[in-house]
Amino acid sequence: MIEFINLNRSEPYCIFEDLYKKAINKKQKHIEAIAISSIDEKMNSPDSRFVNLKYVINDEWIFFSNYESPKAQQFSENSNISCLFFWEEINAQIRIKAKIRKTKANISDEHFSKRSQQKNALAISSRQSKEIGTYNEVKRNFEITLNNKDLIQRPHYWGGFSFTPNYFEFWEANEFRLNKRKVFELNDGKWMSSILQP
Amino acid sequence: MIEFINLNRSEPYCIFEDLYKKAINKKQKHIEAIAISSIDEKMNSPDSRFVNLKYVINDEWIFFSNYESPKAQQFSENSNISCLFFWEEINAQIRIKAKIRKTKANISDEHFSKRSQQKNALAISSRQSKEIGTYNEVKRNFEITLNNKDLIQRPHYWGGFSFTPNYFEFWEANEFRLNKRKVFELNDGKWMSSILQP
Repeated sequence: MIEFINLNRSEPYCIFEDLYKKAINKKQKHIEAIAISSIDEKMNSPDSRFVNLKYVINDEWIFFSNYESPKAQQFSENSNISCLFFWEEINAQIRIKAKIRKTKANISDEHFSKRSQQKNALAISSRQSKEIGTYNEVKRNFEITLNNKDLIQRPHYWGGFSFTPNYFEFWEANEFRLNKRKVFELNDGKWMSSILQP
Repeated sequence: MIEFINLNRSEPYCIFEDLYKKAINKKQKHIEAIAISSIDEKMNSPDSRFVNLKYVINDEWIFFSNYESPKAQQFSENSNISCLFFWEEINAQIRIKAKIRKTKANISDEHFSKRSQQKNALAISSRQSKEIGTYNEVKRNFEITLNNKDLIQRPHYWGGFSFTPNYFEFWEANEFRLNKRKVFELNDGKWMSSILQP
């Protein structure tokens, strides 16, 4: 689930909320899973991974991660990202483009304080995406942290990422690939909409 | 569904096939949906969309699309892509990196000849991702093509894209975010594997 707080009331946000409710009604699993793509500048290549979107606060979309991970490095070198939801229960895809930044520390602190001890132990113990010899080492580091460390204090290397979309495409499948595609682009603070061919 | 033909027997392909079978057994919908990300060089930004993966022929992964679409333009300017599957029924994510190219014409011809008249009419009638006034125009163009055009001959602007992965990450969710991550990287024709921290 995604937590909406004072959700923006412009047209693309209303469409997003409507699709979200339809997908929830159809019991869409992992509805908060969003593919975030960034550019790996050294490799001149895109890079993509799913994360869990936690909040949309007005027009600020927030997920949490490790600030020393490859994706954090990629965001710092090039803040342009593209995002995808695909809710197969309603056969709808949502494409988003945005610039990404770190979330304000107080929001990260508050979210960290609300999480389970286990999740926090993992966030503290794991050097995300660094190589390790065995999966057993992952579990051992986790157990040591869970039993010995302060699990309330957010570590400096963990926190939120925020983005505010400047582009939405709502793509809904239809028979014979007569898919419906509606785009919204932010232009001088105003959403301009258009229809794309399938 | 994805059609496997003479599937490669190296370790990452065996893991992929195993996860695929598990997801099928759990009735994963749209199991063929794969997020393909490319770089929009002009915008210096990643761009992402879901497509339907149709075949894996040995180590060649194939989907079909419009050759005059924005993604085709992006592939021609920078052939590096990243790909994602997320099968929520088994809570597994598969990350792939590859270079993309056009599929050989005979494979595209053969696939086009096997599709329904309706799907071909849409492929012929639609200028993919170009703006159009209304959705009714999309339907009208489709109907005119369906009733008047040769639906057997593949148009020059439609065909397959092929990629051969040089990187796989198999990501399986576990409790407390103790996720399992195994990476395979192609090095001088040999797959090197490692374990990543969650």
